[in-house]
Amino acid sequence: MTNKELAVVYCEGFFGEMDGKTANGLARHSDKYEITGIIDSTKASLDAGEVLDNKANGITIYKNIQESLERKGDSVKAFIYGMAPLSGAFSTKDRDVMYYAMENNLDIINGLHDFLTDDEAFIQKAAECNVQLYDIRKQQKNKQRQVFTGDITKVQCPKIAILGTDSAVGKRTSSVLLTQALQELGLNTVMIATGQTGVIQGAEFGVPLDALKEQFISGEMEKAIVEAWEAKNPDVIIIEGQGSLSHPAYLSSCFIIRGGQPEAIIIQHPPGRENLGDYPDIKMPLLEDEIELIEVFSKSPVIGIAINHENMSDSMVDETIEAYMDHFERPATDVLKYGCDSLIEGILATFPQLQAKLA
Amino acid sequence: MTNKELAVVYCEGFFGEMDGKTANGLARHSDKYEITGIIDSTKASLDAGEVLDNKANGITIYKNIQESLERKGDSVKAFIYGMAPLSGAFSTKDRDVMYYAMENNLDIINGLHDFLTDDEAFIQKAAECNVQLYDIRKQQKNKQRQVFTGDITKVQCPKIAILGTDSAVGKRTSSVLLTQALQELGLNTVMIATGQTGVIQGAEFGVPLDALKEQFISGEMEKAIVEAWEAKNPDVIIIEGQGSLSHPAYLSSCFIIRGGQPEAIIIQHPPGRENLGDYPDIKMPLLEDEIELIEVFSKSPVIGIAINHENMSDSMVDETIEAYMDHFERPATDVLKYGCDSLIEGILATFPQLQAKLA
Repeated sequence: MTNKELAVVYCEGFFGEMDGKTANGLARHSDKYEITGIIDSTKASLDAGEVLDNKANGITIYKNIQESLERKGDSVKAFIYGMAPLSGAFSTKDRDVMYYAMENNLDIINGLHDFLTDDEAFIQKAAECNVQLYDIRKQQKNKQRQVFTGDITKVQCPKIAILGTDSAVGKRTSSVLLTQALQELGLNTVMIATGQTGVIQGAEFGVPLDALKEQFISGEMEKAIVEAWEAKNPDVIIIEGQGSLSHPAYLSSCFIIRGGQPEAIIIQHPPGRENLGDYPDIKMPLLEDEIELIEVFSKSPVIGIAINHENMSDSMVDETIEAYMDHFERPATDVLKYGCDSLIEGILATFPQLQAKLA
Repeated sequence: MTNKELAVVYCEGFFGEMDGKTANGLARHSDKYEITGIIDSTKASLDAGEVLDNKANGITIYKNIQESLERKGDSVKAFIYGMAPLSGAFSTKDRDVMYYAMENNLDIINGLHDFLTDDEAFIQKAAECNVQLYDIRKQQKNKQRQVFTGDITKVQCPKIAILGTDSAVGKRTSSVLLTQALQELGLNTVMIATGQTGVIQGAEFGVPLDALKEQFISGEMEKAIVEAWEAKNPDVIIIEGQGSLSHPAYLSSCFIIRGGQPEAIIIQHPPGRENLGDYPDIKMPLLEDEIELIEVFSKSPVIGIAINHENMSDSMVDETIEAYMDHFERPATDVLKYGCDSLIEGILATFPQLQAKLA
């Protein structure tokens, strides 16, 4: 039925929460792996789709790695570390679980800044078990990295970035859904991934920007887009954003704008979140301030608003969408609930050349 | 007369120009090294101060390394690579010159992204010659690097960043001169270096930001400032800027603002420059646009304008200063020509607590 490699995703204690964003993303969408189970004892035996979106997707949550492998037999080939803690490092318990995975012939896919392939004990264990270690964020040598060249001006199709007001607000999910919706509409659409989750999900173009040295981030962003343009000749390019321009630490979106030069931006915002996810002492920015900041920084318009409905009732979501459309005079929606139609209306109105391709 | 280590600075073909910025900075100011000569055959036998600022400073430019060492005997202990080409890599000729320096018992100080201590041949040669190799931009391991914590709010004194409209416009020079001028006025002033040149010049606090991975830049900026605050209890902190917020590639100033949270900004601008120094196909930003961008991005005011007088006659400089003061209604000056008085007036007007310390 599929050529995807079977994988379990480890997300102990965090599935469905902010620090579980890699696992959440993979449970929703993966081109490269077929996810056979999630490991999180605090939500054992629930359905992953139910936990995330109140919609079952057939992926079971298991109480531990043993159970996740018993149910699926020998066909599982990969263990994906699905958490993204601020520290970027493994706990002792994490290491024990990964050892067990290697002993059961699973390759390990790691998106943290803590690298398995820098760890002698891990390297030796992987060799004994005859499995591979993949550090998604590990940099290649400097010489293979590229500085900004200006080649981005060669790209002739509209580029739309999905930026946000914080990290872990759903920018990647909206990027994936919007890319699919534009494709279904008949537009040749390419998504550029900019974080480790997008890369693990199997995005054909992109790079985890936050693992790069500053001097190369803008250039590598540009290069990923130019490569996508040359390889696929797309009608439109969707660029996944990271963090926010106002964030105290997660500023990759500055490079996404400068290296990628999007002609339009869609902003993702969780109205029910009061403080920054990773910095509970810092208030969330106001949506109007972030829109102004994006438009001044990029000199491109914000053409739509995507709401993240965390901590919101259904009626609050609907009221907020209406209030935003009134106040900001732009399309607003909740893409998980209502799909991408109103965002696409905004895109077609902004880029008549795309409308023309559909006619 | 001095405890500084004697050093020659290598800047073949680029002294006084943009790609010679490390050498230019060291010829103007160095706390750690006493510069005995500059090596640049295209300007041999000229005085370095004359070339830079039309004001002799007693540092001779030599036609090659041999001549620079003959004149100064055995007392020279360090060879500083003083160029900063966009590629960040050494030429074959550079390598020959550095071999000669090592054979003459000089340690090598390197600020490029191309690391001597990653090169087997260099390591072996340095061992044979019993000299040290210093890679200023080389990262320590991840674990020693810090993410943003929010501790910046503990710093109780004003923090002023010197940002710019391009790279190599004189932000570091203005930072050094302003720090000295504030100290002479009687204010305990600490400068935070953010590039390799400032670190080589001997700044006690700071880090070359563009050598860090994105995830740690904001945190390391914050940490350098918090350390300076705790160690020196300064009245005011001056933060050297990098690149510009509008630059397509050099965006460290985004992290300087977010990690360092300056309460005020001074902007450095070269009115006579038409295109970006490293990107001749891209126009310089308008000064008014950059001021707006800085104020929206930082939510702090731009309280002064420092002019870089490249490509400008004396009368043009004076006319521009007057025009800027009229138009922008803020202090404007050329610090190399007229010193820092008018910038300091702006600082004292913005921060009455500093004025009070002088009373």
